[in-house]
Amino acid sequence: MIIHLKDGTSEQEKKALFEELEALGLMIHPIEGVERTVVGLVGDTSNVDINRLQANPLTAKVTRVSEPYKRVNRRMHPEDTVIRVGDAVIGGGDQLCLIAGPCSVESKEQMRTLAADVKAAGAQILRGGAFKPRTSPYAFQGLGPDGIELLLEAKKASGLPIISEIMDLADLPYFEEVDILQVGARNMQNFALLKALSKIDKPILLKRGLAATYEEWLMSAEYLMSNGNENIILCERGIRTFETGTRNTLDISAIPVLRQKTHLPIIIDPSHAAGKHDLVRPLAQAAVAAGADGVMIEVHNDPEKALCDGPQSLHPSEYSRLAADLKGLHAYCRDHLR
Amino acid sequence: MIIHLKDGTSEQEKKALFEELEALGLMIHPIEGVERTVVGLVGDTSNVDINRLQANPLTAKVTRVSEPYKRVNRRMHPEDTVIRVGDAVIGGGDQLCLIAGPCSVESKEQMRTLAADVKAAGAQILRGGAFKPRTSPYAFQGLGPDGIELLLEAKKASGLPIISEIMDLADLPYFEEVDILQVGARNMQNFALLKALSKIDKPILLKRGLAATYEEWLMSAEYLMSNGNENIILCERGIRTFETGTRNTLDISAIPVLRQKTHLPIIIDPSHAAGKHDLVRPLAQAAVAAGADGVMIEVHNDPEKALCDGPQSLHPSEYSRLAADLKGLHAYCRDHLR
Amino acid sequence: MIIHLKDGTSEQEKKALFEELEALGLMIHPIEGVERTVVGLVGDTSNVDINRLQANPLTAKVTRVSEPYKRVNRRMHPEDTVIRVGDAVIGGGDQLCLIAGPCSVESKEQMRTLAADVKAAGAQILRGGAFKPRTSPYAFQGLGPDGIELLLEAKKASGLPIISEIMDLADLPYFEEVDILQVGARNMQNFALLKALSKIDKPILLKRGLAATYEEWLMSAEYLMSNGNENIILCERGIRTFETGTRNTLDISAIPVLRQKTHLPIIIDPSHAAGKHDLVRPLAQAAVAAGADGVMIEVHNDPEKALCDGPQSLHPSEYSRLAADLKGLHAYCRDHLR
Amino acid sequence: MIIHLKDGTSEQEKKALFEELEALGLMIHPIEGVERTVVGLVGDTSNVDINRLQANPLTAKVTRVSEPYKRVNRRMHPEDTVIRVGDAVIGGGDQLCLIAGPCSVESKEQMRTLAADVKAAGAQILRGGAFKPRTSPYAFQGLGPDGIELLLEAKKASGLPIISEIMDLADLPYFEEVDILQVGARNMQNFALLKALSKIDKPILLKRGLAATYEEWLMSAEYLMSNGNENIILCERGIRTFETGTRNTLDISAIPVLRQKTHLPIIIDPSHAAGKHDLVRPLAQAAVAAGADGVMIEVHNDPEKALCDGPQSLHPSEYSRLAADLKGLHAYCRDHLR
Repeated sequence: MIIHLKDGTSEQEKKALFEELEALGLMIHPIEGVERTVVGLVGDTSNVDINRLQANPLTAKVTRVSEPYKRVNRRMHPEDTVIRVGDAVIGGGDQLCLIAGPCSVESKEQMRTLAADVKAAGAQILRGGAFKPRTSPYAFQGLGPDGIELLLEAKKASGLPIISEIMDLADLPYFEEVDILQVGARNMQNFALLKALSKIDKPILLKRGLAATYEEWLMSAEYLMSNGNENIILCERGIRTFETGTRNTLDISAIPVLRQKTHLPIIIDPSHAAGKHDLVRPLAQAAVAAGADGVMIEVHNDPEKALCDGPQSLHPSEYSRLAADLKGLHAYCRDHLR
Repeated sequence: MIIHLKDGTSEQEKKALFEELEALGLMIHPIEGVERTVVGLVGDTSNVDINRLQANPLTAKVTRVSEPYKRVNRRMHPEDTVIRVGDAVIGGGDQLCLIAGPCSVESKEQMRTLAADVKAAGAQILRGGAFKPRTSPYAFQGLGPDGIELLLEAKKASGLPIISEIMDLADLPYFEEVDILQVGARNMQNFALLKALSKIDKPILLKRGLAATYEEWLMSAEYLMSNGNENIILCERGIRTFETGTRNTLDISAIPVLRQKTHLPIIIDPSHAAGKHDLVRPLAQAAVAAGADGVMIEVHNDPEKALCDGPQSLHPSEYSRLAADLKGLHAYCRDHLR
Repeated sequence: MIIHLKDGTSEQEKKALFEELEALGLMIHPIEGVERTVVGLVGDTSNVDINRLQANPLTAKVTRVSEPYKRVNRRMHPEDTVIRVGDAVIGGGDQLCLIAGPCSVESKEQMRTLAADVKAAGAQILRGGAFKPRTSPYAFQGLGPDGIELLLEAKKASGLPIISEIMDLADLPYFEEVDILQVGARNMQNFALLKALSKIDKPILLKRGLAATYEEWLMSAEYLMSNGNENIILCERGIRTFETGTRNTLDISAIPVLRQKTHLPIIIDPSHAAGKHDLVRPLAQAAVAAGADGVMIEVHNDPEKALCDGPQSLHPSEYSRLAADLKGLHAYCRDHLR
Repeated sequence: MIIHLKDGTSEQEKKALFEELEALGLMIHPIEGVERTVVGLVGDTSNVDINRLQANPLTAKVTRVSEPYKRVNRRMHPEDTVIRVGDAVIGGGDQLCLIAGPCSVESKEQMRTLAADVKAAGAQILRGGAFKPRTSPYAFQGLGPDGIELLLEAKKASGLPIISEIMDLADLPYFEEVDILQVGARNMQNFALLKALSKIDKPILLKRGLAATYEEWLMSAEYLMSNGNENIILCERGIRTFETGTRNTLDISAIPVLRQKTHLPIIIDPSHAAGKHDLVRPLAQAAVAAGADGVMIEVHNDPEKALCDGPQSLHPSEYSRLAADLKGLHAYCRDHLR
């Protein structure tokens, strides 16, 4: 850590501060500059409360040298984490993971058909929401436990592993046979939920919050890993910016930036980012070309009758063409680009 | 609702769409413009799923005419909601509500002293966090149930009602004697939590999410009111913008804008917005002059030793001067400005 | 246009407003809803000042049905604009335009070498800044006219057409032999500059402002086209968001969104978006896969000695590999994706 | 400056780097941490190009210790700058500067009346736009030189000094008798304009760009001061955020933050920030209570007929009440708050 001292700090004040810091087992390296004094702290700073240092009246600013996340950090774990679920391989770069399905589970017939369709298109994981986070209390909130039941039937019939969002710890028992649990963007900093999920042994897909920085997102992943869960998947789904021409702004740079910072796999959700079905294809292509480990796309048999997020859903026939193209593009990029 | 039809929609397609809409009990008012056709829908559109309309292939855009929130809407409830807790009167404009206390509850001695100090300064409500949402799993997470216990002792000793944040429904039993429950910014769209809290009969202070629009914030308040809880307080605490010179950007305009849209009281938290104690006073003064119903401020007996958010906390002596000034300013504005 | 009337507008007030609007040659279509009245205006609304309508005391809101931009609008001009400069073909989808060169022109030797290098790598246009917009008055401001001179020598020696930024109309005479003029992000709404450039007959590359919406960007392009210049190129270079992990957030969605709205070609500048050279490759690949018409990349013979933007510049050898890969990727996408 | 070295930098590489830095006359203070090495540079770093350091392949990050702005920095100039124009005193805290007038100058009659009205209300400076920056080339662009002429007549008749926006250096001759020149938000980083204006001896009011950080804004003020102009006024007019419920988000925190960083006076423009006339009063009150040196407000004799920005303009009668209230509030705050 580096402390920038305020102008006019006296020698006596510095001495007292340094003694306090040395008492924490740190070595002190003051640098007297022309205008200001900065102090480097060397040692195990993981026990040093950066808040306390910042609250010190002598302190103008405190900056970290090391990242605050440990288990998700690529420096601690240089090899890519690779997660295998059914036929899907998530992470590592060799394969592209395709996740597809409706925004919300609506009926047995719907799920049966869609599961068969997306499997035929090459998707390895089936998505579907049973518990839906909706901005309005008057909007369709999902089928709840019955939705999970329909998902499980579709899993059985299709053989595809399934992913679904958990919003409330009290619902955890329903998720026993769900293969991957999703934490939604609005719950990315629901720390009670994160802590509980870090104790289970299923993969967790953690969506980025609408206004979460890379560091906050990684810290939430750190929560999920803090009790031993090692199978965390990061999912970029668009951030909130001033631009209203798209629902959210897909932050494509997240792929290469996170690739450097963490060993965890990174999935892109172009459907939620764009909010419009005709933007899904170009964004999905961009994601693959930028190195994403997978793409999660909303598919609905009848988008205009969808109970949720119809405008951004693809018809199964569109998805089929897109999935084939994305696989081809992934193979091309893997084999031809450096 | 108003539907903008896509270019090139045929007469036959329009006819089919209009019949579908009329079947929902709506009256159709098509307007054939020079370049485009728009359609006004008249009737009870609360059952019309805007998502479905947007997913219709004939639809370029759908816009609402009425607000999607009802119970929080000032049009449905023209008079200000006024909430009384202990000596505090929150809302209505006659009095300024002052809430003060430490970011997190740390010890019996701390709470006893601070409660006496802020009461002496004129605060009517004592704040203190027992369950703390922290970005890092390695940071102090609050004293939990013991923290609530210390808050209750301070309540008893001082006579001040108390407010504390609830992060997890499972903790609800601990809050039985807490007077106001706070929902934090990171949980503003934790809909499971909102739904549960809408069934209890205590006031809820709902903080604005870091990137929540006014409408989303009001929709979350609508969740809280949807099962009958009428005592909702809105709290602006800064939004996330590109500016990094402050921790968040206090959106002072939220006060007059929400005043028009809703009857619920509006409180400002300058401490979290600024992140620095020397900005608390000017922002609190601005809040009062812009018409806020109250101000919530962090006070700590020893900011540089605070386990959380020390940099933004005021010493009790500073708070005492500020509280007196804010009351004077509120009285001046109430009595002299139009 | 659609006017939403305020609650409580009387019949008499409506009548007066309607008469006023009819006097402008418009047909009035009032729709009396359950809660509110909206009014559709049909006719030539290009003469209607939306500001005046919004200032009318009866008006709650005014929304447009048609876009405010005309000449840049794809509805008015369905085929792609294709601009040819030297061997470069910008727009139309068949070819990928590669623009490369240093952030700023520094010396004769540098420009001679770099021009040869980027030409050998396959770039069709040479970039280089002579007049540099710098945040600090103390930073290197570019070589000015001498820089243009060096660019022209490099043009002559290499046969590559050149692009350079113009910041001040007074400098226009120096640009006589410059093939494409660039308007920088900070000047995107320098309307005096835009108006003047709309009268010349050279292609203009218009960078998106840091916080400009798609509509504002297109309106600035409309300024450039308003006096007859038809050769406008749009360049996305990252927008300003809350995320500080990259210098700007590359808005990859701009490509498909603008493709729908306008016939003008769209170029991506991954160097300025990322601010770091190791992000340039993945972002450039994403741009090509999302359908960009070209990619502009900073290349410097000795990035760590660059007088400007060294951290984001590629070595010529890196660029050479990247350019080959981008051409391969473009051909693959053009020939294999739908 | 502080350099964070990349992991795995060898001793030999460090040695070479340090020698290079010492050759610049700097003293080197390396701190070997547990995970990383950081290097403090002491000496005159004003000649060190931070870009070059960041481009160095050994460098992970470079951070400044001192601010990059000098002349606008309060550390170099502890006392408030106070600017006197006519009866107005801008800066210093004793008086509140009131600037008022129409968005754009429209007619002789309008200016004559409005000048008399705002003077009677207590405004000390008259504003009016002759050259208008408009998003659309089809919108009213201002009366140009004729507008300046009308402003000068109003100045003569009323005795009020005037302020007007300059968009193009070529127009400078028209501004000879204009008392204060305004640089608009869209030109905040039009460096050619800033450099030229730094050579004249009139006060310049510099509006903050829509997405400009405090530091960028101060650097633009530094440009204005770089050739000797000492009379710079900063004007906050709202920043662009995700919130669309107001036209811009007034950043009230700018007042206390800039007060610490600079000696220059700070004015608030609530009209442009809000975009709606009924928000002007609460925002203006907030500005005064937060310590602004002045408030610039749009006033129009007939807002609904205004050629520009009618929705945010106040009637002279409204302004008269507001101006009296703001003066009272300023006096109260100055005399009663600490």
